Amino acid sequence: MPFINSTLTVKLDKEKENKLKTELGKLIELLPGKSEEWLMVGFKDDYPLYFKGEKKDKAAFIEVKIFGSAEKSAKNNLVSEISNLMERELSIPKDSIYITIDEVSTWAWNGKLF
Amino acid sequence: MPFINSTLTVKLDKEKENKLKTELGKLIELLPGKSEEWLMVGFKDDYPLYFKGEKKDKAAFIEVKIFGSAEKSAKNNLVSEISNLMERELSIPKDSIYITIDEVSTWAWNGKLF
Amino acid sequence: MPFINSTLTVKLDKEKENKLKTELGKLIELLPGKSEEWLMVGFKDDYPLYFKGEKKDKAAFIEVKIFGSAEKSAKNNLVSEISNLMERELSIPKDSIYITIDEVSTWAWNGKLF
Repeated sequence: MPFINSTLTVKLDKEKENKLKTELGKLIELLPGKSEEWLMVGFKDDYPLYFKGEKKDKAAFIEVKIFGSAEKSAKNNLVSEISNLMERELSIPKDSIYITIDEVSTWAWNGKLF
Repeated sequence: MPFINSTLTVKLDKEKENKLKTELGKLIELLPGKSEEWLMVGFKDDYPLYFKGEKKDKAAFIEVKIFGSAEKSAKNNLVSEISNLMERELSIPKDSIYITIDEVSTWAWNGKLF
Repeated sequence: MPFINSTLTVKLDKEKENKLKTELGKLIELLPGKSEEWLMVGFKDDYPLYFKGEKKDKAAFIEVKIFGSAEKSAKNNLVSEISNLMERELSIPKDSIYITIDEVSTWAWNGKLF
């Protein structure tokens, strides 16, 4: 039950959005027990972000929400690869990317709490 | 001090948005001590969401934030009824709806922390 | 590593957005150890918010995320000043502003967890 929501300064076309979704679907497997089978992905593009006091052409705030918890080493692998992905596909420098991982205990699907 | 923010793939017209807001204002009472008197409601419609690897015409990610905590049974009733509401009003299948409930300890209104 | 995301009913022009960003960059120093040097700021304007059952012309939901934690007194100063700022610059009444502070333990920058 993960959710990855990417808030991006850049504008995404359909092709790029699809590519990112596909890659995130693979990367989520870096967290044990997680897979694209339960992954929801959202994109908020063309969004105004300021960092260190300046309006950025290229920056990202990425929220990963997972049900339950994960080991720090697995989380480190995930944030490293998500950063690589955003730098490679969108030319967003890694040092303008924040990623938070929120380990959520109250999560519902299909009308019921897990 | 609850906040319910609905991120939806579908486009909302004013009438539908108003209907959802009104119903959410009733449903929040399923959490003891909560009511529309303190409820803020937001809608982010026409938003790209992918689930299980596919772009969805009908999906939702709904964040419920509450100040303090609530019993699991009450939370279960709430997510069940919110899911019913979204399925009934927006034809979003319940199995394409994620809901998280975030029990927030640091919440301010009117310039002061509760 | 703070992030302040303001969801606002009002529409922002560039000048106002820049002013808010600059002021938030000063206010974040109310939290010991935090400064604009590490602050990301985002704005979601012209957003539909309902409060107490009514659609509001002037309301705000502001999320402050910080890495680690802060003393309650410092957090109280911060929410007080952010509320003053929004009231002064955007004419949003303080009693239509919710602010949450989320103390995040899993936060990455530059491809690595802190």
